[in-house]
Amino acid sequence: MREVLKGNIVHAPSLGVLETVENGYLVLDDGKIAGIYKELPADCAHLPCHDYGDRIIMQSFADMHLHAPQYPMLGMGMDLPLMDWLSTYTFRTEARFADTEYARRTYRRLAEELIRNGTTRVCMFSSLHVEATWILMEELERVGITGYVGKVNMDRNALPGVLEETTEESLRETLRWLDGCRSETVKPILTPRFTPSCSDVLMEQLGVLAQERGLYVQSHLSESAGEIELVQRLHPSLSYWQTYEKSGLWRDHTLMAHCVHSDAQERRAMKDRGVVVVHCADSNVNICSGVCPVRLMLDEGLWVTLGSDIAGGAQLPMYQVITATIRASKARRVLDGWNSDFLTEAEAYYLGTTAGHRYFGAGNGFAVGDALHAVVLDDSEFPEPARELSVQERFERALYLMQRRHVTDVWSQGKCVVKNGAVIANAAI
Amino acid sequence: MREVLKGNIVHAPSLGVLETVENGYLVLDDGKIAGIYKELPADCAHLPCHDYGDRIIMQSFADMHLHAPQYPMLGMGMDLPLMDWLSTYTFRTEARFADTEYARRTYRRLAEELIRNGTTRVCMFSSLHVEATWILMEELERVGITGYVGKVNMDRNALPGVLEETTEESLRETLRWLDGCRSETVKPILTPRFTPSCSDVLMEQLGVLAQERGLYVQSHLSESAGEIELVQRLHPSLSYWQTYEKSGLWRDHTLMAHCVHSDAQERRAMKDRGVVVVHCADSNVNICSGVCPVRLMLDEGLWVTLGSDIAGGAQLPMYQVITATIRASKARRVLDGWNSDFLTEAEAYYLGTTAGHRYFGAGNGFAVGDALHAVVLDDSEFPEPARELSVQERFERALYLMQRRHVTDVWSQGKCVVKNGAVIANAAI
Repeated sequence: MREVLKGNIVHAPSLGVLETVENGYLVLDDGKIAGIYKELPADCAHLPCHDYGDRIIMQSFADMHLHAPQYPMLGMGMDLPLMDWLSTYTFRTEARFADTEYARRTYRRLAEELIRNGTTRVCMFSSLHVEATWILMEELERVGITGYVGKVNMDRNALPGVLEETTEESLRETLRWLDGCRSETVKPILTPRFTPSCSDVLMEQLGVLAQERGLYVQSHLSESAGEIELVQRLHPSLSYWQTYEKSGLWRDHTLMAHCVHSDAQERRAMKDRGVVVVHCADSNVNICSGVCPVRLMLDEGLWVTLGSDIAGGAQLPMYQVITATIRASKARRVLDGWNSDFLTEAEAYYLGTTAGHRYFGAGNGFAVGDALHAVVLDDSEFPEPARELSVQERFERALYLMQRRHVTDVWSQGKCVVKNGAVIANAAI
Repeated sequence: MREVLKGNIVHAPSLGVLETVENGYLVLDDGKIAGIYKELPADCAHLPCHDYGDRIIMQSFADMHLHAPQYPMLGMGMDLPLMDWLSTYTFRTEARFADTEYARRTYRRLAEELIRNGTTRVCMFSSLHVEATWILMEELERVGITGYVGKVNMDRNALPGVLEETTEESLRETLRWLDGCRSETVKPILTPRFTPSCSDVLMEQLGVLAQERGLYVQSHLSESAGEIELVQRLHPSLSYWQTYEKSGLWRDHTLMAHCVHSDAQERRAMKDRGVVVVHCADSNVNICSGVCPVRLMLDEGLWVTLGSDIAGGAQLPMYQVITATIRASKARRVLDGWNSDFLTEAEAYYLGTTAGHRYFGAGNGFAVGDALHAVVLDDSEFPEPARELSVQERFERALYLMQRRHVTDVWSQGKCVVKNGAVIANAAI
């Protein structure tokens, strides 16, 4: 089936470049982009048209790192140091997901919040619970979000009696979970929490599993000083990244969240292996981890994507994460004595959209042949400007000002999944 | 008339201290706070009661620095350096306020946005236009916002042909404006834009006026490196603060926005004279001005308040400014090699409420005898927590998560001015 979306089109085909088509047409063929046009081609004139009028049609967002079971503690404990925050809030909150009813309620709400805010692709940490992880995958699929979800592995330094698993349990449950995953659109990803949480045996067995089943891997790397010291004590002869590498987890497409303090050698190892950085600006600020040198990473050719990292991050909407990324890059500029350039809006938007969507095999921007992932934005409520604005100016302003109520429609995997602010859930799931 | 507000009460009577009363009662006598009670006194049982149920009743916000005529450019031009941003957007936008119809529409919207987000007191820059400034004052009064508004003075380094005034015009128009101000609740404040924009003669005449009429003064100080260099070129023998001091503008209650780069001598001069710092965290980040050492200022005993500083700041709601302040203090901690403490939520909330309200003569927190300035917040839409939360935890989470739709009621100067999200405008204005 062919159809047309009409509106002001904005996308980011490469880092720092925004392409806009005022009053343009986006033609879909079975949900896949057939072309973007300033004038509608004659042979498309009869097609059904979603006329979005003066609204903005922009790429949807990819959230490449977040902890679903930390959603209940969003915005909480922000005054606590990392280790207290983990023991007071995080592990106790994650432990609640042994309760499948609580998991169902919470994940349904999380999935709806994500899609209503225009996040259509995710790479997500679950808790260590198999049933809750399946529920999370179902709830994401139900609202049309695609991507990867991982049951967390953590067989050391957990919270005894509250949240823990043995090495055998961790491996057995991971296999049970993998064998029970059925979705075509929300797939499993191996998820060792991070080196301090995983024994050598567990890491190695996960490495074997990644290799045997061709699975992607996600974890954390070089987030904060205290964590890095702990890894050094546990593995005195290795760099942090080598603890993953020796277990076979340092693979092409391995996602590593944070990398705030990665040195030149670690950054080089990422680039050489095709490891993907997930920069989590708000989380790094909230937890006082440091300010990631994203500009440097981009200059070195690393693949950098963005994550909300709830609940270290207190902002679930990726448009807020994008402006937090710009703000963090400006703090980095000050930290560098005004000698590094901040990230422009076009650059940060690219990182929060195209750079993430490419992880799932998509092309650049609204690429021909890709299933449509898009957000439709109504900016008519914003302040009346002093002069007429270009589409690009309207878009850039919207990144700073938009809230959930301004997102009217969302398209994911070629389908309209939010219409006039309401989620169109797949009732079959 | 006596009446009662019932709900979960939160206020900040001193820096770092939050007081909460779960299911408490706040008794008003002609709009003034008569007391806060855990149990309603017997002689109040018959009084009319605003039963806010499980909602949170907290102090409203004081925005101590913002540029009303920059509201139309909120969130715009954030990728431009300061001087380009001023000439491309700011001065051209301010120039539009020669049009009183445009001013009426824009300021009506701004006033409604402010009050719906719980900002009940302001110190605000207008443009140089007298009529638009009166309109701004009327529109604030109409929705129940109180405070100070200033016609801007700027007789040099403006934008010729677009936005400029001569020294004589500036003084004559200031007198005309002052003589036409009628409101008891929105009062005039003298507003030399900043030293680079004001000739010596203008500054001195404004100093005389401040003295003669007992007017407060607001301006900018030590915001960014380029501006400080410019002031040094203009006044080679003076420190920045001395350019105000020699004109008689460095007075008790003079408000100075930013002070990012104020040295020990300048900070000392503020403390000695009773000059009030307005810290504008989001603006400082967006414009890459630097990261203000707020903790140091507090330790030195300076009076620090908060401002949204739209449109250098891109966030009008003060709850967002408060979390931006916390985040900036964490960036400052990183900048200080993790050797300075960040601001806690209790501290930042105090700066955004009590520290500002005191400028207008109010006491500490919900002080007995003060006219009520309060926000009523419905947090029932926030994620279901993993365990029951205390009122303080709910409040702290709300600071990070709240949006306009969660503010149900607002009280200003002892009156309910927003009810169920709708502005109760004074039709007589």
